[in-house]
Amino acid sequence: MAEQKLTIVKIGGNIINNEPDLIRVLDDFSKITTPKVLIHGGGKKASALIRQMGQQPKMIEGRRITDAFTLDIVTMVYAGLINKKIVALLQSKGCNALGMTGADLNTIQSHKRPVKDIDYGFVGDIDKIHSDNIQILLQAKFTPVFCAITHDQSGQLLNTNADSIASYLAGGMSHLFSVDLRLCFEKKGVLENPDDENSVIPKINYDTFQKLKKSGIISEGMVPKIEGAFHALKNGVKNVYISGIESLKPGKQQKGTRLCL
Amino acid sequence: MAEQKLTIVKIGGNIINNEPDLIRVLDDFSKITTPKVLIHGGGKKASALIRQMGQQPKMIEGRRITDAFTLDIVTMVYAGLINKKIVALLQSKGCNALGMTGADLNTIQSHKRPVKDIDYGFVGDIDKIHSDNIQILLQAKFTPVFCAITHDQSGQLLNTNADSIASYLAGGMSHLFSVDLRLCFEKKGVLENPDDENSVIPKINYDTFQKLKKSGIISEGMVPKIEGAFHALKNGVKNVYISGIESLKPGKQQKGTRLCL
Repeated sequence: MAEQKLTIVKIGGNIINNEPDLIRVLDDFSKITTPKVLIHGGGKKASALIRQMGQQPKMIEGRRITDAFTLDIVTMVYAGLINKKIVALLQSKGCNALGMTGADLNTIQSHKRPVKDIDYGFVGDIDKIHSDNIQILLQAKFTPVFCAITHDQSGQLLNTNADSIASYLAGGMSHLFSVDLRLCFEKKGVLENPDDENSVIPKINYDTFQKLKKSGIISEGMVPKIEGAFHALKNGVKNVYISGIESLKPGKQQKGTRLCL
Repeated sequence: MAEQKLTIVKIGGNIINNEPDLIRVLDDFSKITTPKVLIHGGGKKASALIRQMGQQPKMIEGRRITDAFTLDIVTMVYAGLINKKIVALLQSKGCNALGMTGADLNTIQSHKRPVKDIDYGFVGDIDKIHSDNIQILLQAKFTPVFCAITHDQSGQLLNTNADSIASYLAGGMSHLFSVDLRLCFEKKGVLENPDDENSVIPKINYDTFQKLKKSGIISEGMVPKIEGAFHALKNGVKNVYISGIESLKPGKQQKGTRLCL
């Protein structure tokens, strides 16, 4: 069961910001021969647009506060500008891409994050992946390209972390496919020494993760990223790698950091 | 052959601008029981955003000049803000909507309009509808929702008239379906007297169209709209109506202006 392979690739905001990197990664992605899904982060453009409109981006501890104005901005930038640019580029490379939010085909359902200490505004925490509709697309040899917007199925769009989308999506598809999840970012993997690009930790299991967290080697944004990845593994995802964009190259040996339970 | 009905509805910018109208029309659209496609215009938001960013919208004879900056804006507003808002609203009404540009699944291929007297910039004239991919979506009971953006299959997005998309799409699907095309706008149909909302001309054939054009009763934006509609009829579309949003109501008798060859 679940023998067919599905490759899910998430590319981070810093790759989006760097056009030559983006084109290279899309070129490699388009050559992946298994069914595949791309998820992309937002990049700096949303904050730049907010500033161009005379406002200040609202961030608390590195996380965006999404008021109604900001939701409109991220919907425009993520689902419009970035998503459609990626789709057009992939189509030019022969990859039959379909740009989506979680609202499209009700693929990713979430709820507005409840207000505790901080009111994050229109931010969605994922409840459910509707894998049946995604499977229909994959069976037709279409390549879904998701941006970081979901919905609550009551008409409300919600800003949602792209790493979370990647992990939930991978987990949600794992009863249908043997899923490889690749979280690609600007570094080659999880680094033992942040100043040494070549100090990639080849393998992290849940125990080592706890130790690396305690010692401060894994910190900040890397913590939820890896927690999400473990969530995916617990939900049946076969392989999870945190790696640089070079790892997508066909036949490439360097795979970044592999996570295992 | 081509016995299954397909309803293609285009809603204009003035409906988009009016939120209660938009919600009402989406409510009626979601109740259409045949396979269906929605195409939406842009509304005033793109020009408003251009102004908010300290620039002036560039128009010649009522048509937008789409430089690189403006293309980014319309991609954000049409494919992001408006398209995803419509998708989320339709999903809340139980309609399994999928928001798209012509780049998605390479559904609508166009070429950049050649420069003659006027350089319209990144504006696309449609070459081809890829009906096979749209048919796969319809067979899965998905409802495509197109905004007015296409691509040239070489990585370039292009701003494209929504009426043209509706007419070409209707024509392009007519070998597979018996297509009804409904071009909905803020008036009840083509008016004999622009000051009398109830002077709807019930039926226009190609000869009457030429006469109405000469007499000035049909002018400006209505001319290309109707020309596109005749193009659709010539390409096998079964019925074309130009009508108000009320005409979408289930069981409604008032159908606006019917076009016939």
